[in-house]
Amino acid sequence: MRCEIVAVGTELLLGQIVNGNAAWIGRRLADVGWDCHRHTVVGDNQERIAGALREALGRADAVLLTGGLGPTQDDITREAIAAVAEVALVRDPAIERWLRERFARMGVPMAEMNLRQADVPAGARTIGNPRGTAPGLMLEIVGRPVYAVPGVPREMRHMLEAAVLPDLAARTGEGRAIVSRTLRTAGVGESLVAERLTPVWEAGDGSVNLAYLAAAGEVRVRLTAAAPDEERALAAIAPVEAAIRAELGDVIYGTDDDTLEEVCGRLLVGGGRTLATAESLTGGLLAARITDTPGSSAWYRGGVCAYDADAKTGLLAVPPVLLDAAGPVSEAVAAAMAEGARGLVDADVGLATTGAAGPEPHGGQPPGVAWLAVADAVGTRTRQLHAPGDRSQVRAWVTTVALDLLRRRLEELGRPTGTAADREGDR
Amino acid sequence: MRCEIVAVGTELLLGQIVNGNAAWIGRRLADVGWDCHRHTVVGDNQERIAGALREALGRADAVLLTGGLGPTQDDITREAIAAVAEVALVRDPAIERWLRERFARMGVPMAEMNLRQADVPAGARTIGNPRGTAPGLMLEIVGRPVYAVPGVPREMRHMLEAAVLPDLAARTGEGRAIVSRTLRTAGVGESLVAERLTPVWEAGDGSVNLAYLAAAGEVRVRLTAAAPDEERALAAIAPVEAAIRAELGDVIYGTDDDTLEEVCGRLLVGGGRTLATAESLTGGLLAARITDTPGSSAWYRGGVCAYDADAKTGLLAVPPVLLDAAGPVSEAVAAAMAEGARGLVDADVGLATTGAAGPEPHGGQPPGVAWLAVADAVGTRTRQLHAPGDRSQVRAWVTTVALDLLRRRLEELGRPTGTAADREGDR
Repeated sequence: MRCEIVAVGTELLLGQIVNGNAAWIGRRLADVGWDCHRHTVVGDNQERIAGALREALGRADAVLLTGGLGPTQDDITREAIAAVAEVALVRDPAIERWLRERFARMGVPMAEMNLRQADVPAGARTIGNPRGTAPGLMLEIVGRPVYAVPGVPREMRHMLEAAVLPDLAARTGEGRAIVSRTLRTAGVGESLVAERLTPVWEAGDGSVNLAYLAAAGEVRVRLTAAAPDEERALAAIAPVEAAIRAELGDVIYGTDDDTLEEVCGRLLVGGGRTLATAESLTGGLLAARITDTPGSSAWYRGGVCAYDADAKTGLLAVPPVLLDAAGPVSEAVAAAMAEGARGLVDADVGLATTGAAGPEPHGGQPPGVAWLAVADAVGTRTRQLHAPGDRSQVRAWVTTVALDLLRRRLEELGRPTGTAADREGDR
Repeated sequence: MRCEIVAVGTELLLGQIVNGNAAWIGRRLADVGWDCHRHTVVGDNQERIAGALREALGRADAVLLTGGLGPTQDDITREAIAAVAEVALVRDPAIERWLRERFARMGVPMAEMNLRQADVPAGARTIGNPRGTAPGLMLEIVGRPVYAVPGVPREMRHMLEAAVLPDLAARTGEGRAIVSRTLRTAGVGESLVAERLTPVWEAGDGSVNLAYLAAAGEVRVRLTAAAPDEERALAAIAPVEAAIRAELGDVIYGTDDDTLEEVCGRLLVGGGRTLATAESLTGGLLAARITDTPGSSAWYRGGVCAYDADAKTGLLAVPPVLLDAAGPVSEAVAAAMAEGARGLVDADVGLATTGAAGPEPHGGQPPGVAWLAVADAVGTRTRQLHAPGDRSQVRAWVTTVALDLLRRRLEELGRPTGTAADREGDR
């Protein structure tokens, strides 16, 4: 079954914004087993929107339009759809009431123009929009489903998940509920994750779709199931998730919208601990990711960007003799930096990075080589890393793996003493 | 005149990559006065590529294809174009030689498959690719120009600037040379920049196109001229650039590919000075942007992310009584942080940020309020700021404005004593 995407918006044609919606929708259509053979972008012009819709209906089994559903005069996707369906636009009293109440609740006067959003092609159903004011539309034209959703990404995504994807799935006979579960992993490359999960993939009956999404130092494994109802979709996912967890173990750091820095924050708060950072290679990126997390002030004390040797010895009390003997990119210096960071701002845990970001070698090490360390009251753990890519990629990769080193250490510290080794065995 | 864009690539349909090329091309077409009424994306399928090209030729005066020109079997844009043009693919001996020499120079064996890139639809001209192996193509079908360029953004952009845009401009009779000049400004919003440049815009004869590109805390003003040759295009731009510089003055920090951090680095190196940072609100972002600049270790000593009060008083020697009296988001604390950063790592210049990033107020200040300070041997300058947007936008905005405060102070310090005020007047 094929679904085409038609994006509406002159700002897309002029390149004022990038059509990221199409990529997101393309991934979700693939997840639910629909093919997509074409994306089209047209401007805010009724004739051209209608033309693109007619052509798409001539090729595909379903068409999804994004954008052009807002309240202003240049939002004319409703009119174009009505023209292609050869029906009139009818004002929906329920939506009109909902719009009036929404504005009244916000305490702002409603411009009459907003009521254009209550106009619906005769015979169409609407899709609720809890995140904005423009409802979505669902109707059939020449026996094929046509969906229209707003161009605002968070509104579009909500409607896709809540209404469009389940409807598409129902049409292929796969059921009405689509459930996705994302397992987030860090510190292992995409091809290695995929290789380790090949047996899981091969043992499956095809009812659960696996997709890999890679970013610097992270791989997300997304499981999607379509079933007659949500309970059965969840039941299909559960054994696959269990098999993946058994295979990947503590490579998985979280699920769905978790971030590594949030997971670290929860572990720190749970253990009553605070954090300090000492960065050479990552030069502030680690601190920046941590402090981008709302609430991080509860567990992050602060950090140092010790970019040159004097800053390392002066601020972090790395012994100059150690720096000379081992070199700035070394296990010993990473460990001394992590310990120095703890002491500097009186934190329970110190996390440090040092390495060569490139394009030039640093401290005798080629670009991509890094040493990480995490220090606490019990001791200091280190890790070496060869990160791929250019300067920016190396820095992003090392930042992620450093947070993952912290996460693993915090999980270890949080466990009841004496049972950790028994439970983990020698996996 | 209308040009349509057809992007080729199954990875685009599946959402594995976002079609950022279309947005970039859309902006450049607008710059040179061509309309673009449609973007289309199709997969690596010869029949569907040919179909999209035929339809685009039926609507537009020119068609630009991106992607599908590589060496592997799924790269079939060449075949699709030849089919639509109803010509054969002919191996071009000059390109074959160039490819063989290129691989020989790199010292790697060439897979025979690479010679597919030397196949050219009969009658087409090729566009050189100094950044990759796949040449671009230019030909006419039914009297309309068709261009094909690689999907790799840096290869695509080079060919657009060097060959495609000049050819399109020549076809509208505007001449063969297209020259762009970007003036980069910081610290002033887009609407204010646009308002101040309205007289320049209105005084123009239309030969130079002005476009505004806004990012957090920055606005780029791009001037584009098309003329019979480069010299005349430059001559058209020069007076407009001069008028903009006269109006905006030192709001302009650089041109073309300059970044604020590079400009600051050049000013620091030129004055023989080093830098230290002290960040509260920006929490490492300032350090991260600085250290993402290759060579920054020559002028950046290091920095501190002083996220809580203890870090501010302990590390940066901000007097606790000052912190209590003025509050953490205050001019006095920003100044003390900048001075503390200088002393901490023995740097010539200290740069500090403090403020409320949101979503919660901080130190009695609403989200978006920030104080910045730059301290040096002569004195300390401060600036208050109300940054718009959510937590991430506020942090990015403040980072940019902090670098701009540093840039202005360094320009001031770098001037010969006694002439600065005379030269600048009371602008």
